[in-house]
Amino acid sequence: MSKILQHINSPDDLKTLNQEQLLLLAKELREFIINIVATKEGHLGASLGVIELTIALHYVFNTPTDQLIWDVGHQAYGHKILTGRRDIFETNRQLNGISGFPKRKESEYDAFGVGHSSTSISAALGMAIASRIKGDLNTQHIAVIGDASIASGMAFEGLNHAGVSKANLLVILNDNAIGIDPSVGALKQYLTNVKKGTQKQDNIFEALNFDYSGPINGHDLPALINELERLKSVKGPKFLHVITTKGKGLKQAEADQVKYHAPGQFDAKSGELITKNETKPQPPKYQDVFGHTIVELAKTNQKIVGITPAMPTGSSLKYMMEAFPDRAFDVGIAEQHAVTLAAGMATQGLIPFCNIYSTFMQRAYDQVIHDVATQNLPVIFCLDRAGLVGQDGATHHGVFDLAYLRCIPNLIIFAPRNEVELRNMLYTAQLGLNHPIAIRYPRGRGITVDWKQPFSKIEIGKGVQLIEGKEVAVLSIGTISKNVTEALNSIENPETFSHYDMRFVKPLDAALLHSVLKKHSTIITVEDGTVSGGFGSAIIEFAAKHNYKNNFITKGIKDEFIEHGTTEELQKLNGVDSESLKNLFESIKKAD
Amino acid sequence: MSKILQHINSPDDLKTLNQEQLLLLAKELREFIINIVATKEGHLGASLGVIELTIALHYVFNTPTDQLIWDVGHQAYGHKILTGRRDIFETNRQLNGISGFPKRKESEYDAFGVGHSSTSISAALGMAIASRIKGDLNTQHIAVIGDASIASGMAFEGLNHAGVSKANLLVILNDNAIGIDPSVGALKQYLTNVKKGTQKQDNIFEALNFDYSGPINGHDLPALINELERLKSVKGPKFLHVITTKGKGLKQAEADQVKYHAPGQFDAKSGELITKNETKPQPPKYQDVFGHTIVELAKTNQKIVGITPAMPTGSSLKYMMEAFPDRAFDVGIAEQHAVTLAAGMATQGLIPFCNIYSTFMQRAYDQVIHDVATQNLPVIFCLDRAGLVGQDGATHHGVFDLAYLRCIPNLIIFAPRNEVELRNMLYTAQLGLNHPIAIRYPRGRGITVDWKQPFSKIEIGKGVQLIEGKEVAVLSIGTISKNVTEALNSIENPETFSHYDMRFVKPLDAALLHSVLKKHSTIITVEDGTVSGGFGSAIIEFAAKHNYKNNFITKGIKDEFIEHGTTEELQKLNGVDSESLKNLFESIKKAD
Repeated sequence: MSKILQHINSPDDLKTLNQEQLLLLAKELREFIINIVATKEGHLGASLGVIELTIALHYVFNTPTDQLIWDVGHQAYGHKILTGRRDIFETNRQLNGISGFPKRKESEYDAFGVGHSSTSISAALGMAIASRIKGDLNTQHIAVIGDASIASGMAFEGLNHAGVSKANLLVILNDNAIGIDPSVGALKQYLTNVKKGTQKQDNIFEALNFDYSGPINGHDLPALINELERLKSVKGPKFLHVITTKGKGLKQAEADQVKYHAPGQFDAKSGELITKNETKPQPPKYQDVFGHTIVELAKTNQKIVGITPAMPTGSSLKYMMEAFPDRAFDVGIAEQHAVTLAAGMATQGLIPFCNIYSTFMQRAYDQVIHDVATQNLPVIFCLDRAGLVGQDGATHHGVFDLAYLRCIPNLIIFAPRNEVELRNMLYTAQLGLNHPIAIRYPRGRGITVDWKQPFSKIEIGKGVQLIEGKEVAVLSIGTISKNVTEALNSIENPETFSHYDMRFVKPLDAALLHSVLKKHSTIITVEDGTVSGGFGSAIIEFAAKHNYKNNFITKGIKDEFIEHGTTEELQKLNGVDSESLKNLFESIKKAD
Repeated sequence: MSKILQHINSPDDLKTLNQEQLLLLAKELREFIINIVATKEGHLGASLGVIELTIALHYVFNTPTDQLIWDVGHQAYGHKILTGRRDIFETNRQLNGISGFPKRKESEYDAFGVGHSSTSISAALGMAIASRIKGDLNTQHIAVIGDASIASGMAFEGLNHAGVSKANLLVILNDNAIGIDPSVGALKQYLTNVKKGTQKQDNIFEALNFDYSGPINGHDLPALINELERLKSVKGPKFLHVITTKGKGLKQAEADQVKYHAPGQFDAKSGELITKNETKPQPPKYQDVFGHTIVELAKTNQKIVGITPAMPTGSSLKYMMEAFPDRAFDVGIAEQHAVTLAAGMATQGLIPFCNIYSTFMQRAYDQVIHDVATQNLPVIFCLDRAGLVGQDGATHHGVFDLAYLRCIPNLIIFAPRNEVELRNMLYTAQLGLNHPIAIRYPRGRGITVDWKQPFSKIEIGKGVQLIEGKEVAVLSIGTISKNVTEALNSIENPETFSHYDMRFVKPLDAALLHSVLKKHSTIITVEDGTVSGGFGSAIIEFAAKHNYKNNFITKGIKDEFIEHGTTEELQKLNGVDSESLKNLFESIKKAD
């Protein structure tokens, strides 16, 4: 049982502690996080790395009046626990539990909701300027940002503005040389040189007009407190460079920082990962179908290159980076650059596979339109984590992609129903399409153990009939097809229903759709993207254009931000799980 | 008649010239551009500023084998004229004429299509890496980027990657201290210090691992040629800092660089602008309705702040910047930062009007979703240049906004039919909506001379009936309503048609739509955005959801990239001009 932590119900309680007690609190807080994340899972390494910084910040500053923004938010577990959420921390990332990220709705201490990277400087600057406008010159505004996140363009834009403002802004660089994967880029190299003392005279942050201090040891709590106290009275834009170790305090997490970013379950005492002994072979993760297949294709097609913005592990592009280090690129958290880099490569006849999580593709939307589609360059976008992603919640669901991509001319949009379809589309795309294509697939494992089939070409714009029925046609896109199949397999009167996998949201299979619309009175569309403007909307547009008068039911993600929970729970809330679909299908039968 | 220029049909012809002839060519090229732009209009100042640089680049490098990318492309007129387009330059920006921007389809010398800023480094790096992969170590890759564009986040992402690549990349900073409006930000201040020699020791570009040289005088042609020759043999990432004067060679253009960015018609000899003597009062530009109204509102509502990413003149936020310098912010070409800055301000109870051109809002798409809409912060987005923008062409049309915004939960989407509606919605929004709102309006003048009416509140989500008819309902959104009205006024049997201005794409006016769908057999939607996923799509979704079986015709922008021309010409090509709509309406009458 913790001696100190159990009495900390808000940051006010911190301020009564002496130095010895603060150091003990750091130890207890670390143990508390390790113990809970070991069983409940979550993001581990980032929070362990900022335990001292978290305590120091809440000790020195007057939160929530002083406004503290954690960039991305993976590192905010300690912050949550010290700001009144200790006893509900075990509900982290669960349905109706607390969010894995800071969230304004959850606590007044969460000054700004985060999830995607590099937003903290802009948001904190907005708050700081607001304070100035109100004539409040005392409130402090603090953005804590990692070295991977600060290398993203948006962070630079924030720094560039802050440097000429007189705003009372403190940017703290939590420099641990790693994001989810190790940091990359010239700025990272620069920061490394600063740490080693080999950087000559140039100081980028001073050049941008910040009052720079550091680097200091981020695990030296008294030093942190002293420096933060000093900075409290410095006006204008300030930059504190703090060196930390991701995973600090758990040996394995320090040693394998990538794996222990979000390690799943592990033994809290030994730190060893708990590996489930699966007796039978598992279907692969979709990311691994991508990762292994691109290596296979790159062996024979010399034009293939791979690009990831900071997700070599998460996308499994790491396999290509190992096999063909000169042809696979981690460009850091730089989705905009990644897309236009791919466009540049495509002009030279290379075949770029640009792998970006669906939710992060929002960051490169203009580049997809302006640099790729306008020029009709055959870049192959692989959108991982499409659809509902589960525990990461509202900021991370990849549910808008079909809607925001569908309006882009020249773009092909494909979603595989299973691993073999994904594999075959990767194969087909590198044969040459004369168009850009977006291939979107979900987080997690598929359904096909024996997925490594011989390659087969997919005809662009062709859907397939999976089941032939009589009255009602179910049109699905992507892996949600599985739920439709399960639902149809469990109803009493399945012969009423046809099931089609349309495969392509763009171009639609016009011939197939004409026959489907003629043959069936009712059309049900099923997708794991937003119903507003998505796949179902495309089908209805087609039907309206050709003057069909069928009944339509569109199932998909509701027009609201979906919170965290398991993917299954969230599917249920949106009526696209097998059981809800079954109920829907049966209700239609009865109505007939 | 030019002595030298008339013989320059490709850069090869440059290479035979001696220094004296090159200097004469610079003079002739300047005159040629001035003479044509004076009557045909276009972007003047940027190209005048890089005449010497343009000649030097094509003289020294082996284009098009060496790849030259002009960031944004406003400055590429000289490049176009020297690369075989001299005799068709007078068709610049006209329908079926050459594009105002470099364009791959137009010339092999246009290595990468541009229009939006800050893409050149990423694209050139992609090409440079492609060369390395192919084993080609000789080809040169050059990005020419202005000081306003290099301050945008995307450019930083490109630099950050290039600095650790071994790619043969030359970044040339065309530093004239101005974009369309004067440059801002800490980087601009830094560059000013470099020029003045007051910057201490810090060199940002060396810190990012570039081989930095300069600053050199960009109007000294021999010096430019010497330095570019030297850089040809330097391997790896290089950075050349060139100082130029925007508008160089035309006195007025140097003196008023903002006005002469794209001055309209002017006297080629005197340089004086040709002002049209309008005898009767003109309706205002929509941007000025915004610009003047926000000042009016800000006088009584202290919470209002204004934000523009580098468009104070184009958006007319400059009026607020003059009236309330502490409450209006030009943040530079930083759309991402602009949106999240606004979000940060909104958390503190301020009322931010964030004015971004529709096409540039694509750059901040993730921030609109992730930082504003997810947290339901009441930021007021004003999307200027929505719909077809005319001569700027494919890269600049604001035709995707309704489609890409419509899928975002919590967001209100409004388009005013006229100036008074815009004014009233600006008024309504600052009263407090508890939601973010996007207000989109077009480039150019409206239709209402007497637009400064007393403020009146607009009910959120309510459309209006403009004309009551019998069988066919025309539903329009925004200013394209004018074409519908004109068409209906010119047909023989207008009583067939009702006309509704729906005003809101989100939330739709459900009560009105139910009555419209019940009363009319055929529904025609008209918008100046893409038909794929846009306003018409929203109406069809609504009808399908409620099981209506009307006939639908959706008119809007085709699912292809629309080139340049006058807005009227482009409306005609898309069937949304008055005459096309009239023909459509009459064809329906006949079919009845």
